[in-house]
Amino acid sequence: MNAPTGDGPATSPRPKTPLLDRVRVPADLRNFSVEQLRQLATELRAETVSAVSVTGGHLGASLGVIELTLAIHAVFDTPRDRLIWDVGHQCYPHKILTGRRERIRTLRQGGGLSGFTKRAESEYDPFGAGHSSTSISAGLGMAVARDLKRARGIADDRQVIAVIGDGSMSAGMAYEAMNNAGALRSKLVVILNDNDMSIAPPVGAMSAYLSRLLSSQSFLNLRDVAAKMARRFPRGLERTARRAEEFARGILTGGTLFEELGFYYVGPIDGHNLDHLLPVLRNVREADDLGPILVHAITKKGKGYAPAERSADKLHAVSRFNVITGEQVKPPPGPPSYTKVFANALIDEAERDPAIVAVTAAMPTGTGLDLFGKRFPDRCFDVGIAEQHAVTFAAGLAAEGIKPFCAIYSTFLQRAYDQVMHDVVLQHLPVRFALDRAGLVGADGSTHAGSFDLAYLGCLPGIVLMAPADEVELTHAVATAAAIDDQPSALRYPRGDGVGLTIPQHGEVLPIGRGRVLREGGRVAILSLGTRLADALAAAEELATRGLPATVADARFAKPLDTALIEQLARHHEVLITIEEGSVGGFAAAVMQHLAWKGLLDRGLRLRPMVLPDRFIDQDTQPRQLATAGLTAKDIVTTVLQTLGQDAALTAVAG
Amino acid sequence: MNAPTGDGPATSPRPKTPLLDRVRVPADLRNFSVEQLRQLATELRAETVSAVSVTGGHLGASLGVIELTLAIHAVFDTPRDRLIWDVGHQCYPHKILTGRRERIRTLRQGGGLSGFTKRAESEYDPFGAGHSSTSISAGLGMAVARDLKRARGIADDRQVIAVIGDGSMSAGMAYEAMNNAGALRSKLVVILNDNDMSIAPPVGAMSAYLSRLLSSQSFLNLRDVAAKMARRFPRGLERTARRAEEFARGILTGGTLFEELGFYYVGPIDGHNLDHLLPVLRNVREADDLGPILVHAITKKGKGYAPAERSADKLHAVSRFNVITGEQVKPPPGPPSYTKVFANALIDEAERDPAIVAVTAAMPTGTGLDLFGKRFPDRCFDVGIAEQHAVTFAAGLAAEGIKPFCAIYSTFLQRAYDQVMHDVVLQHLPVRFALDRAGLVGADGSTHAGSFDLAYLGCLPGIVLMAPADEVELTHAVATAAAIDDQPSALRYPRGDGVGLTIPQHGEVLPIGRGRVLREGGRVAILSLGTRLADALAAAEELATRGLPATVADARFAKPLDTALIEQLARHHEVLITIEEGSVGGFAAAVMQHLAWKGLLDRGLRLRPMVLPDRFIDQDTQPRQLATAGLTAKDIVTTVLQTLGQDAALTAVAG
Repeated sequence: MNAPTGDGPATSPRPKTPLLDRVRVPADLRNFSVEQLRQLATELRAETVSAVSVTGGHLGASLGVIELTLAIHAVFDTPRDRLIWDVGHQCYPHKILTGRRERIRTLRQGGGLSGFTKRAESEYDPFGAGHSSTSISAGLGMAVARDLKRARGIADDRQVIAVIGDGSMSAGMAYEAMNNAGALRSKLVVILNDNDMSIAPPVGAMSAYLSRLLSSQSFLNLRDVAAKMARRFPRGLERTARRAEEFARGILTGGTLFEELGFYYVGPIDGHNLDHLLPVLRNVREADDLGPILVHAITKKGKGYAPAERSADKLHAVSRFNVITGEQVKPPPGPPSYTKVFANALIDEAERDPAIVAVTAAMPTGTGLDLFGKRFPDRCFDVGIAEQHAVTFAAGLAAEGIKPFCAIYSTFLQRAYDQVMHDVVLQHLPVRFALDRAGLVGADGSTHAGSFDLAYLGCLPGIVLMAPADEVELTHAVATAAAIDDQPSALRYPRGDGVGLTIPQHGEVLPIGRGRVLREGGRVAILSLGTRLADALAAAEELATRGLPATVADARFAKPLDTALIEQLARHHEVLITIEEGSVGGFAAAVMQHLAWKGLLDRGLRLRPMVLPDRFIDQDTQPRQLATAGLTAKDIVTTVLQTLGQDAALTAVAG
Repeated sequence: MNAPTGDGPATSPRPKTPLLDRVRVPADLRNFSVEQLRQLATELRAETVSAVSVTGGHLGASLGVIELTLAIHAVFDTPRDRLIWDVGHQCYPHKILTGRRERIRTLRQGGGLSGFTKRAESEYDPFGAGHSSTSISAGLGMAVARDLKRARGIADDRQVIAVIGDGSMSAGMAYEAMNNAGALRSKLVVILNDNDMSIAPPVGAMSAYLSRLLSSQSFLNLRDVAAKMARRFPRGLERTARRAEEFARGILTGGTLFEELGFYYVGPIDGHNLDHLLPVLRNVREADDLGPILVHAITKKGKGYAPAERSADKLHAVSRFNVITGEQVKPPPGPPSYTKVFANALIDEAERDPAIVAVTAAMPTGTGLDLFGKRFPDRCFDVGIAEQHAVTFAAGLAAEGIKPFCAIYSTFLQRAYDQVMHDVVLQHLPVRFALDRAGLVGADGSTHAGSFDLAYLGCLPGIVLMAPADEVELTHAVATAAAIDDQPSALRYPRGDGVGLTIPQHGEVLPIGRGRVLREGGRVAILSLGTRLADALAAAEELATRGLPATVADARFAKPLDTALIEQLARHHEVLITIEEGSVGGFAAAVMQHLAWKGLLDRGLRLRPMVLPDRFIDQDTQPRQLATAGLTAKDIVTTVLQTLGQDAALTAVAG
């Protein structure tokens, strides 16, 4: 394979004998010299680039923590010591070092390794992730668990290390955890992986603070460091004094925001320099009376791989690519993504309505709001990884007559559920939620699936909940949300590309709570919500060939229900299938609730609500995930035939 | 009425002419002298005490902001200027001053004033609350809305003021908002109402930081203040210089955590001293190039009313009381509250299992964990108002074999929905959630109703979800949760007292996912989840007298379903009523989903799922709220009779 071009301090002369082959588990590298670890860093970086070139994935973040990963595993006794990676998308080198190298080229593939840390996958992943900013809370829980066991006389001196990026520090959850850790005083090592960048450029006062911290600090001189370490790290005294020179240039302490919150602050240090990292981490390991410790490490996202270093987003998330050029394999030309359709539709509405603004929580590219922001820089707000604030900020805007579109992935809106309920819906404020990545999301897997929004939003009184069936409908849904000025609304749409329809120049405002019938049939009706419509229509085609013409309707709205349409479908068909890419408790629940009270379930209607199964679905392609979930055209046909007792016909379907 | 005893600086000689009668809206007090405002403070304090003595409510917090309320309304041009009270439970004096004095003795009563700020109630409540820590986000949204309008040429120079307590500062949401405000630089006034106390004694590093800040600051001398204010508040220059002496002792600025986050910090100042408050707020009002400003005001909860000042919790939340003695009207003796039953059951389990610990988010008394904490001080963790952290902290504990009970009100667990899903349920970690205040909650109203947990938890794969029907069942549910060691579990129970059963010494471990049949009937089955069971049994009594003996079953578990029981009920009855104190999308949804796929809805079963109506229910007594919701015994009887077409029999029921 081709080694990446490295130019940082971790780059060493060309390795002679591969060391990575000698590392099956981290214990294998604990007797390596610093020189050997440097060589190992080069190999690990090359292996990471090589693997991701095959699988695609989160490259930049992993390249930024090569040395950090090695240093932590060299100094700490993993898996006995607990290492928690915040978000987990920077864990590829960690996976390579912890017994998963052979499977590393299955990353993010069906049946392969998760793209995140995962408890079920390895004892070296003591706490899984996917969403950000959870690591300090989890680590504090583990540290306190250790202390509780000790209090009961159970020997346990394990260390707990949480590695968290500066972007994740904008989330309130990280602050809550620091606030609690500073008070509890349990030994916990938090490594702040500060690359001045999360997924998007950094935002927020914390980011500005870290920059100031970095630029304003002057280095302590050698004597100061030795004295300070001797005083504060008593058990590491001798070692500290001996190694003081090594990290004199890397360690600084001072009256920082972290110290105000009760952390012992060490840093900033060069997160790519093993000569600094190793002694600092050793000292931190030995210190046992300082309470929580924050090690501030400065890293570069994409470090050591020239195409990543050159890229604006440091190759944060990539598809398969050419290792030498860094050129990513482009997907075959196809319809625009729902994300892009949403963004263009919103821009179109905003051109005509100056009150429209957009809010994102650190996902400008993922939500398409980067396009909106280019067109309307003063009307686009990236609040950082801060979904709670994003929602209530939008509520404040809406209370004053501004029209905010709050674009947040379905899975991340879970972070702001209370704000949606308490600040927006309860107050009937016209915030428009745009839920990207609703339903199954492919390679990101179960942490990121947008499975629950129909349930957690559908139960809220007075919200309008739309699920457009295709890109044209999405355009209309955006126009409709823009027009809904007296109550909250949400629209959900999936990851991936549209079905290839011609998108109208302007969206149309749809009648609220009205569905549409696409196909008239006989005994069978299929009521689809959202993008399962294509499969519903395909199923109807198949059923027609079997002499079972089916009515197909698109509900358009999960709330309010088109009760007239639903009643009509129930009255005039023997079988009613509902289908949605969401969990139990969502659209079908509302349909059944309505039909039950109308007495329309009393008459022998054979209702079959097709929803996501009651289990988590691992990473895979979206089509395969949908097949696993049983939400394809074939599943609809099978359900209809089984329900009608035409089991004989099933053989053909199964084949 | 009896004036309260006041002893602070706001206490003035006995008023001669009542001034409060002259204040119908805040504009009426803007020409008052400081002396008059001081008199008004005394009257407002007395009126607040008098009103709450009749209604009960959040007394301590309101008494702590009497002067602050007056000063804000005197200096700012409400309602044009936007005043947002965080949480909103300290708003009683604000309501008295803003046109609601005549209705103030209807606080928290059915049809009366809400106990919180509420947009629908008054233009002086531009953003309602109930849950904590939302005010900075909402205020920032309003401030940015103003700036956006200005950018469009719309004249708008309104001020936005958010008043937030130090306890609310422990929530991540407040930090997210400060982080964003510090970056956006919009003019926003945040008043930190620091009484070193939220509902419970303060916890967390932020609280310790504020204490240090307070004790370590030395006062600036007069010249420093004048110079500083002249430099930093350019438009207020003359006024500032003139008044410098007045607040020299009250104003301090320095390198604080808030300044690191981009706020201009003013304080600490005495929040009960109008001579300090008024000029500081005037200067803050005039400053227009400082970005967000934080005014740090020191107040005392319960200030000026001796019984409140003497009380440990400063009479945070009281029932009706005697104004002179402060003695609260005790409820008639009755069964213990569910909260207390839970706490005692948990203590009993913890006596026998040293791995059990408890986690609360600033609600030790409300959840009964104060009792647990007294018995096991080292095993009880109050993390502050920080539900997100609480849940993932518990997940970390569970990952290491500790058995955490995370006791959070149903409505507040909404704050941690993503953590429940992503950190606990997805990882299948055995965290035990205890959801107090599930269902309708009485006087606190719609902000605090626990209406949605059955929907938002019921959709999560692999969680065990219990809803005990009475205090004995709650004891068993706690024992069961303690025993569930391989998956997450939750138990929900209502506000209020049990039904009066004898509570066993130890809880029994219930078989997971198994309900119980309490009464065998004929054509009708009632399947109850949770504490609606008493009404289900009463309805069955009533139906029996009409020749309609009904089967009554207690589901015990919303998840996993007792599918055998449910199928049996569906097969052998004509009418199946389900009843739960929760929204659409919860237990009934799961029952219908199951029955539909089993084909058991195809046979003419008349299913009637009784859930909370799809609207918010305002404050009232719990029985009246349940009647409004249509979830009483009478509603069950009516539903059965209507469903059976025995409308003739309904006349008797209606009467």
